[in-house]
Amino acid sequence: MAEELILLDEWLSMYGMRARIALAEKEIKYEYREEDLTNKSQLLLQMNPIHKKIPVLIHNGKPICESAIIVEYIDELWNHKAPLLPSHPYHIAQARFWADFVNKKVGDASGRIWAGKRDGFEAAKSELVESLKELEKVLGDKPYFGGDTFGYVDIALIPFYTWFYTFEVLGNFKVEAECPKLIEWVKRCKQRESVSKSLAGEKEVYEFVVHYRNTHHLD
Amino acid sequence: MAEELILLDEWLSMYGMRARIALAEKEIKYEYREEDLTNKSQLLLQMNPIHKKIPVLIHNGKPICESAIIVEYIDELWNHKAPLLPSHPYHIAQARFWADFVNKKVGDASGRIWAGKRDGFEAAKSELVESLKELEKVLGDKPYFGGDTFGYVDIALIPFYTWFYTFEVLGNFKVEAECPKLIEWVKRCKQRESVSKSLAGEKEVYEFVVHYRNTHHLD
Repeated sequence: MAEELILLDEWLSMYGMRARIALAEKEIKYEYREEDLTNKSQLLLQMNPIHKKIPVLIHNGKPICESAIIVEYIDELWNHKAPLLPSHPYHIAQARFWADFVNKKVGDASGRIWAGKRDGFEAAKSELVESLKELEKVLGDKPYFGGDTFGYVDIALIPFYTWFYTFEVLGNFKVEAECPKLIEWVKRCKQRESVSKSLAGEKEVYEFVVHYRNTHHLD
Repeated sequence: MAEELILLDEWLSMYGMRARIALAEKEIKYEYREEDLTNKSQLLLQMNPIHKKIPVLIHNGKPICESAIIVEYIDELWNHKAPLLPSHPYHIAQARFWADFVNKKVGDASGRIWAGKRDGFEAAKSELVESLKELEKVLGDKPYFGGDTFGYVDIALIPFYTWFYTFEVLGNFKVEAECPKLIEWVKRCKQRESVSKSLAGEKEVYEFVVHYRNTHHLD
């Protein structure tokens, strides 16, 4: 059967990058469709009527929404190569716990930095740094969160790296000074083609955020 | 090997009930330990140092945290009977999507009703009713969210029923008037021993909330 696979995405989205990296790890071909989030397509509204958010993976006409769920779907369906989740239920549970931590803590603090008011910066910055330090402890001396292999938690976290430059400029700090081992891990991840070709550019993110903050009168 | 299985829980918790129902569906024996959340045990702080929340399932000394992750762990590890998630990756993704919706929408609105200030009631109540109506549409004419079998989304949602009475008294409305089919589904779920023995009492929840709101000067 001819597979039809479409990714509704937005290039700068941390969550969209996760889907792109997972598809690249599996070497799955798909049609990429950039969404203009200020003017969402009918297809996006029809495929994700509940949250109206990207990314949405449309597989033979059926939508899969929410980045963590998309990555698990990709891993479960195309299980012939590059397993993203570990095999033992306990290790799977641990990976899900830390990916969920990335969403709840890193995701939340990041949003408050780039799209929040300046008076909330210090609290959000502390929370971000604290969360990244926690993740650095989990990484320990392993090459990847998945151990020797790049996996689910790596995919959940690495897209946030592309926003670090913006956070650093806005918050006047350096992630590397706080979490040097995490930045070593970033460099390791970026050597993978699946990652490097899926990540937005740091300067591109920064320009978007500056424009966003100006037009929303946040500075 | 002798298995050691302990559930750190709090009887009135919607999230704890999920773990109890999943374990009951699988007919797994475990030691239940009630936590006093105003004075958390050393074991809880040690087993879930990140969120310090119940439920925590401790399996042979190793913790699994977050209710959705615990239910998936139980389903994956004890896969000999009563499958909770469907078998096809697309249906799994759909089940995860709706369980996540329960957490994000029903869970959030519920919290704002029972532990929030009165001036936030109307907005939270509308959001709760709207979310329950959305879920009622997903249920459709099926006996369970899992289709003919009770499953993952059923487990995610049914514990909230035990709090409906409290929401109704506080918000002066009736869930049944808004979502009659959902209440039919509740009755069907309650006929299962796994559910009936795992759910807190509605009056017990109400008394807890009245006491909580009094001591926190919320009314």
